[in-house]
Amino acid sequence: MTDSSALRHEATVRTIAFVQYPGLTPLDIVGPLQVFSMLSHLVPGYDTVVVGERIEPMATDTPLSLVPSHTFETMPDPYALIVPGGAVPTLAAMADEKLLDRLRTAAVRSEIVGSVCTGSLLLAAAGLLEGRRANSHWMYRSLLARFGAIPVAERWVQDGNVITAAGVSAGIDMALHLVGELAGQDIARKVQLFIEYDPKPPFGPIDWEAADPGQYTSRRRESLQQALANYPALLERLTS
Amino acid sequence: MTDSSALRHEATVRTIAFVQYPGLTPLDIVGPLQVFSMLSHLVPGYDTVVVGERIEPMATDTPLSLVPSHTFETMPDPYALIVPGGAVPTLAAMADEKLLDRLRTAAVRSEIVGSVCTGSLLLAAAGLLEGRRANSHWMYRSLLARFGAIPVAERWVQDGNVITAAGVSAGIDMALHLVGELAGQDIARKVQLFIEYDPKPPFGPIDWEAADPGQYTSRRRESLQQALANYPALLERLTS
Repeated sequence: MTDSSALRHEATVRTIAFVQYPGLTPLDIVGPLQVFSMLSHLVPGYDTVVVGERIEPMATDTPLSLVPSHTFETMPDPYALIVPGGAVPTLAAMADEKLLDRLRTAAVRSEIVGSVCTGSLLLAAAGLLEGRRANSHWMYRSLLARFGAIPVAERWVQDGNVITAAGVSAGIDMALHLVGELAGQDIARKVQLFIEYDPKPPFGPIDWEAADPGQYTSRRRESLQQALANYPALLERLTS
Repeated sequence: MTDSSALRHEATVRTIAFVQYPGLTPLDIVGPLQVFSMLSHLVPGYDTVVVGERIEPMATDTPLSLVPSHTFETMPDPYALIVPGGAVPTLAAMADEKLLDRLRTAAVRSEIVGSVCTGSLLLAAAGLLEGRRANSHWMYRSLLARFGAIPVAERWVQDGNVITAAGVSAGIDMALHLVGELAGQDIARKVQLFIEYDPKPPFGPIDWEAADPGQYTSRRRESLQQALANYPALLERLTS
């Protein structure tokens, strides 16, 4: 950076905005938030916000409730907008036109649009993934095609300015990748060191041969029926 | 399980309790909480709670605030008590006698006592790690010896009924290990599948040779001084 004034510095701060809505999976949001928050502590020029409809506690799929820091009206224009996922409440949010409008409006103001887990179904339902290569939680990945996206089974998938991660914990890997793109690999490695992200899954990696998504088709259908009972057209589109 | 009545079933529910206090690192708590919460969704007999001094929003080291589900008075006797860590606010909490008393009292009621990251410094300050092998965030690991614990550089360390994880993200690995101990490896693998914990750090594992903790000694000292300015005896004990 050059000898920028405080004013110039403020103008060049990149804000990473995480979208919060009721019932989400907290690790989807907290994983990448912790990565970018550490980035903002280590080097100047980055900031994080959590944006929701109101600044009040919202339930998650755990006993913990979360409170966002900003509303959609008060958040600064984000450099990156990240949408976390969840189970039935996220599937239900595919029919929440108010939230989808918030996403469309915020996406226009963002350089990068991203998601974790089934958050990509919200981007897809908002029409933001048409023709894009994208991923989601493995159980829901194939549904992306119903919205015109191209499902890809990678830990994270970048297509133009859209980046989508696999399920839940994949948001950490995606965020570290983005930090590398934004601030360079040395900084990304420092973030990794400070959050001591040196994973040692006690039973090794996932055995994808044993974890056949096909056996979960009925479970997925039940979750969709529970989430979208009042939206028969969308339900039909996703279960036919 | 035998043909237990509802009453008997309720009596055998194992509650995993996570301690919340102001300023903590949210990934420390949300990582293992998401693991145990998934366990409770997949099989009967498990429950999770988040316990704090009051059921109201508390700040974290990110823009997100968290709200616990229970107070120390209202939480059920936990099977496991897990204490997350953080940076300066956690170091300051080493001098919070009220919180340390809460931990001592809750630990007596628990079968297993655990921590993530610098949460082990709170267990240590509460006198719960004397003579125990234990770990913490790499930057603070050696301080455990000042409280009579034996620092061990492993992803997680189990010594009797005490289990302590390395920094921040290590809580996920520790929690999956505990799920394996409690419910068996097949269930632990299923939890891992559902949170899609198949980590792919984009720049590989941490390079511990390059990440010499020695170079962070002054940074650690500054954080301790900031946290414990009003507790000179404890500060002296940890920085001399």
